[in-house]
Amino acid sequence: MGSYTIQQVLIPVGQGYETVDVQIEGDAIAAIAPHLEPIGTVIDGRNKLLLPGFVNAHTHSSELWQRGSIAPLPLELWLGELCDFPLPDPEQVYLSALGTAVETLLSGGTTVVDHLTLIPGQEKETVAAAVRGYQEVGIRAFVGPLIQDQSLTTSLPTGGEQRTHVPHYMSLQDNLDLMADLVANFHRPEAGMNIMLAPTGPQLCSNALLTGCVELSDRHSLCRHTHLLESKAQQMLAYEKYGCSAAEQLQRLGFLGDRTSLAHCVWLDDADIAILAATHSTVVHNPLSNLRLGSGIAPILKYRQAGVNVTFGCDGSASNDSQDVLEAIKLGCILHNTTDFDYRHWITPKDAIQMASLGGATGLNLADQIGSLTVGKKADLALYSLTNLSLLPRTDPIGLLVLGRPTQVVDSVWVNGRLVVQQGEMATLDVATLRQELFERSQWDGTRHSPLRQEMEAPYRRVMGLPA
Amino acid sequence: MGSYTIQQVLIPVGQGYETVDVQIEGDAIAAIAPHLEPIGTVIDGRNKLLLPGFVNAHTHSSELWQRGSIAPLPLELWLGELCDFPLPDPEQVYLSALGTAVETLLSGGTTVVDHLTLIPGQEKETVAAAVRGYQEVGIRAFVGPLIQDQSLTTSLPTGGEQRTHVPHYMSLQDNLDLMADLVANFHRPEAGMNIMLAPTGPQLCSNALLTGCVELSDRHSLCRHTHLLESKAQQMLAYEKYGCSAAEQLQRLGFLGDRTSLAHCVWLDDADIAILAATHSTVVHNPLSNLRLGSGIAPILKYRQAGVNVTFGCDGSASNDSQDVLEAIKLGCILHNTTDFDYRHWITPKDAIQMASLGGATGLNLADQIGSLTVGKKADLALYSLTNLSLLPRTDPIGLLVLGRPTQVVDSVWVNGRLVVQQGEMATLDVATLRQELFERSQWDGTRHSPLRQEMEAPYRRVMGLPA
Repeated sequence: MGSYTIQQVLIPVGQGYETVDVQIEGDAIAAIAPHLEPIGTVIDGRNKLLLPGFVNAHTHSSELWQRGSIAPLPLELWLGELCDFPLPDPEQVYLSALGTAVETLLSGGTTVVDHLTLIPGQEKETVAAAVRGYQEVGIRAFVGPLIQDQSLTTSLPTGGEQRTHVPHYMSLQDNLDLMADLVANFHRPEAGMNIMLAPTGPQLCSNALLTGCVELSDRHSLCRHTHLLESKAQQMLAYEKYGCSAAEQLQRLGFLGDRTSLAHCVWLDDADIAILAATHSTVVHNPLSNLRLGSGIAPILKYRQAGVNVTFGCDGSASNDSQDVLEAIKLGCILHNTTDFDYRHWITPKDAIQMASLGGATGLNLADQIGSLTVGKKADLALYSLTNLSLLPRTDPIGLLVLGRPTQVVDSVWVNGRLVVQQGEMATLDVATLRQELFERSQWDGTRHSPLRQEMEAPYRRVMGLPA
Repeated sequence: MGSYTIQQVLIPVGQGYETVDVQIEGDAIAAIAPHLEPIGTVIDGRNKLLLPGFVNAHTHSSELWQRGSIAPLPLELWLGELCDFPLPDPEQVYLSALGTAVETLLSGGTTVVDHLTLIPGQEKETVAAAVRGYQEVGIRAFVGPLIQDQSLTTSLPTGGEQRTHVPHYMSLQDNLDLMADLVANFHRPEAGMNIMLAPTGPQLCSNALLTGCVELSDRHSLCRHTHLLESKAQQMLAYEKYGCSAAEQLQRLGFLGDRTSLAHCVWLDDADIAILAATHSTVVHNPLSNLRLGSGIAPILKYRQAGVNVTFGCDGSASNDSQDVLEAIKLGCILHNTTDFDYRHWITPKDAIQMASLGGATGLNLADQIGSLTVGKKADLALYSLTNLSLLPRTDPIGLLVLGRPTQVVDSVWVNGRLVVQQGEMATLDVATLRQELFERSQWDGTRHSPLRQEMEAPYRRVMGLPA
């Protein structure tokens, strides 16, 4: 780590912009003011925009291996197809963590929340591989191992049909023991590496597993993360399973709170929204995945009006299929204009930037440490070149960044004061080698066949009221 | 123009892909088969995908000067704000045509439909400037000058309120005389330059202007293009103005047909959809602009089920704010999954590619000449490099291209057999000079003020039932 002075850079201030110098010393923002006496490495900030780093607040890194593969299907059948792919090995997990981190950083993200799929029998090795990748690249990471104690077929509502399910291979106690071990071995917040308690979702977890996660996370002041009501089928299932909404059930179990972020939140009603507001929980909106899986349009404008903190995620690459945070921000900004005729409620580009930075930090209980251009906060920063064709002519820099389709505009990125992207290239990783590894371990394939998806299709169509 | 042999390139065939050689001779595709005897320039097609070029089937090129500028507003108020920007000069029109063409080409587009805003008093110079830009770059272009004979304020429904309007500066006859002159001077289909008859829309045109456009276009076998029912306000206005839907009115006037493409088509009912199908009209879906302006989600799955041809546009850069055709294709593919629970109706990535290529060609009455990889058709082709990080690991190439977020993946583009993009760079234009021109003629500005928008806001809110 060194010191940096970014000279004459644009930063957003109120409704407009100011030109200032910004200094980084060690891991923190040391000064923001015009005409500072330079320290350390001097960086020309002219015709560049400096913003706090974004949080890619929900993804599943190892889905990178499936991106582009799965046909247009709703969540439940998509999951069946996903489960039919061969399991990755830990080296592949490492490589997909690298790929996820690189795409996140090169689109202005400085933190990734990886809801990480575990390799059965190699759970600890899975986490170790992802952690290694994130630390090498130098992105701030929250790794939430995907744990559950119920098998996939239990996630379909029954509509009263009798069904039998094979037990999940991991018991309640296996899960909790694993998590205690992972916390002890990998949770190093001062190094930018955090473990979260991240049960897959109410649709695949017992109440005991959810409360076990609450206890463990409270003991160590860890963040909690889960999927919540992504699909209509999940909404139906919650009423079958609990007799109430899944949001109400999570509240009863003590899962919600200001260290809890909830991916998707598409099928919540007004009472559920009030629960999220009252518990200071964070909604992670994944607009592209919600569209691709036909999950629906999350009621984001209602969340904002109710005072619920909202931020954005890319979701795993098998359901988006990209880790471009700016793309998620653009869609998260404009999609909701179709849900409310009163444009005074619409999200502005500046709102969207704040949701992606401070909103993301808030959901990770880090609002006092990252998420804004504030002296004393950690230097998690992205510097954008505004002379790229995709950001010309010069108008409103944040308008261009959010509403346009910027390509290759990230000039530099610092995480915790470390320069990880320099002049548009990764400073911490040889991307050509990563590309070669990804290339060699894969093959073009336009024709896939999934027995599990086929098996799930008939019951899914029956319970969802679709014609056979 | 020369000859080219692209060796060992992937092309889509049925559900999968084949590796073939593709030859271009003059302006046409000469051969597609494995292991051809090479002719002309040999291009290594290994790990590359060849597709027919896309049509950016609706844009307004000179809005490039406003991109990123306008706050989230519905169409009618957004237009008010747009009209308050200073008028461009012809040189600016030329530059924004270049920028629009470059972004279209670098995202796989080979044809642009420019619904071109005219500079009052310099109408012919405006068209000449855009035509010059497109011919220099070498993109296939359809220029449809935006003509109207009613002023902007008439486009708001009244809800019974009395309103007075200033007359539009161009009369019916002025418009028709202008168009006859432009057709005579600029319509050169054999050179890839086409003039279309493109009245702004029923909300701003008299019946006489619309029928005048029908007559002129029929006389010269020209394409017709217009905005149709983009917003709820336009739907309301049509009933005030005609006592029927705008689609029905256009049918009565003879405007619809297999040479007619209609931008947006958000607020059509089932009877209107049947009209589009019966007349073989084409819908140009602009998903990003429809979201940004809160216009709504066009019923694209219904159009497809009714047999209506659908293709995609980026729309003008003030309402998207990008000319990345792949972005429009992605959104146009996934957005509609939220409108129909039956995933068997959803658009697949291969469907989306076909809609963007052959669908676009069909809407321009060119389905026999471009839009597919067919020997004898014009060589309007895009070659994608599949080893870019954003398209790795290797899975389904078209799945990756459509559902991912490809960046800098276009290796080569041919239009009418001319190589216009080579190794990812424009072969016909110095992009650095273009960037410099765009940079110098603009200024950062985060604070805009629009008197016309403010003036329109109160009547808009009243008639749309929004609180004051």
